[in-house]
Formats: sequence, C-alpha cells, structure tokens
Amino acid sequence: MAKDLNISMLYDFYGDLLTEKQQEVIELYYNEDLSLAEIASHSGITRQGVRDSIKRAEFQLTEFEEQLGLAQRFYEIKSKLEEIKKNAFEIEQINSRLYGSKEIDMRVLEIKSLAQKVAEL
Amino acid sequence: MAKDLNISMLYDFYGDLLTEKQQEVIELYYNEDLSLAEIASHSGITRQGVRDSIKRAEFQLTEFEEQLGLAQRFYEIKSKLEEIKKNAFEIEQINSRLYGSKEIDMRVLEIKSLAQKVAEL
Repeated sequence: MAKDLNISMLYDFYGDLLTEKQQEVIELYYNEDLSLAEIASHSGITRQGVRDSIKRAEFQLTEFEEQLGLAQRFYEIKSKLEEIKKNAFEIEQINSRLYGSKEIDMRVLEIKSLAQKVAEL
Repeated sequence: MAKDLNISMLYDFYGDLLTEKQQEVIELYYNEDLSLAEIASHSGITRQGVRDSIKRAEFQLTEFEEQLGLAQRFYEIKSKLEEIKKNAFEIEQINSRLYGSKEIDMRVLEIKSLAQKVAEL
C-alpha cells in the first residue's frame, strides 16, 4: 500500500467525519509517518487490523470527496490564486520599472496580501 | 419556522450527504419555495412529517458545518476575492488616468477574470 498524498488532503477536509479511532490511525500513518507495525504495537491491535482500518478510512474519505468535491474546489481556487499573485507581481515589476506609482504599488501589495490570506485559509 | 438563507448555502455544500428523501424536501422547501402543506400533498406524507424531515435535515447540515467549517471557509475566500477585484479595479482606474499602460491593463484584466472564475467555482 503506497502512501498517497491525496489522502492527507482529503483527511484535512473530511477527517472530522471519521470516527476517533479512524482519525487516530490516519494521523499516525499519514501525518506521523509511522509504519503499520508501529501503529499496531502502539494501539494494541494487529497489523492486519490497522491495515483494514486505514483502508476503510481511505475509502470513506474518497467517498466524501466523490459526493462533495470540496477538496477539488479548494485546489482549483488555490491554483487561480497563484495566478493572481503572479499577475500582481508582474504589475509591481512594470510599475517599478516604468512609473514608480505609489498608488499602484499599495494596491498590488494589498492584492498579494489578500491572495496570501486565502492561501492560508 | 423561518426559512433561513444559510440552510440553502449549507445544502449547496453538504446536500449530497443527506438521504434522497431529505434532499427532496429541502429542495422543495428552500429552492422551490413550496410551503409545508404543498410539500405534504406532493409527497403524500403529513405536514408534520414534512416539518420533522426538514428539521432533521437542517440539523444534519448544521452539524456537518460545525464539524468541517467548509462553507465558512468558502465564504471568507469569496469575500477576499471581492477585495482583490476592488483593488484590481482601482489599479485599472489609476492606470487609465495616469499612464495608459497596456501591459498593466492586460494583467489587471487577467486578475479580474481569475477572481471571477473563483467566484463561480
């Protein structure tokens, strides 16, 4: 079983809909990067039990995303925000090279800071 | 029972996690704006049954939002995007008044169009 980056992302969105037990194994496996054997010895269940539990949780996270598609929506928002920042940066460059307008600079900074805040939401 | 705008929003996010029956009553009540009596006669259950069903669905939608907070996250993103558009518009005004730079204009348009795309996601 390969660790999948997407599961971490889905867990970030839908983790709170999982049971506490499921949240624990997913966190240990994906966020703490423990092995199945380590999680097994830590939680007093078998290695196979841990594997089943992770599989079930992964399936449910994938199902939530198939039903709601919110992680995908956020992913697209973030990528558009990157493009907005790139354009704001280019305006800053053009302005600094040609006009040196403080009024434009102020607004470029504001756009970059707003885009940054969205990225952190 | 007052119709609450927020329920429509939460339904937009989490509706697919409700049962088909619940989705139906919520859609008739919130999106089609039918009365409890109209929904009752349409679905062949009592008015009280419809009311209970809506109440349960509303409770669940609210619970999903309390657990995941994704509607709130989107709401904040959209409000930041509005501010980005406002700043881009101001740059456009300043540029058109003082410099008439096509290079800046192009990028302002790009930012406005990206912000619009995010608003529609």
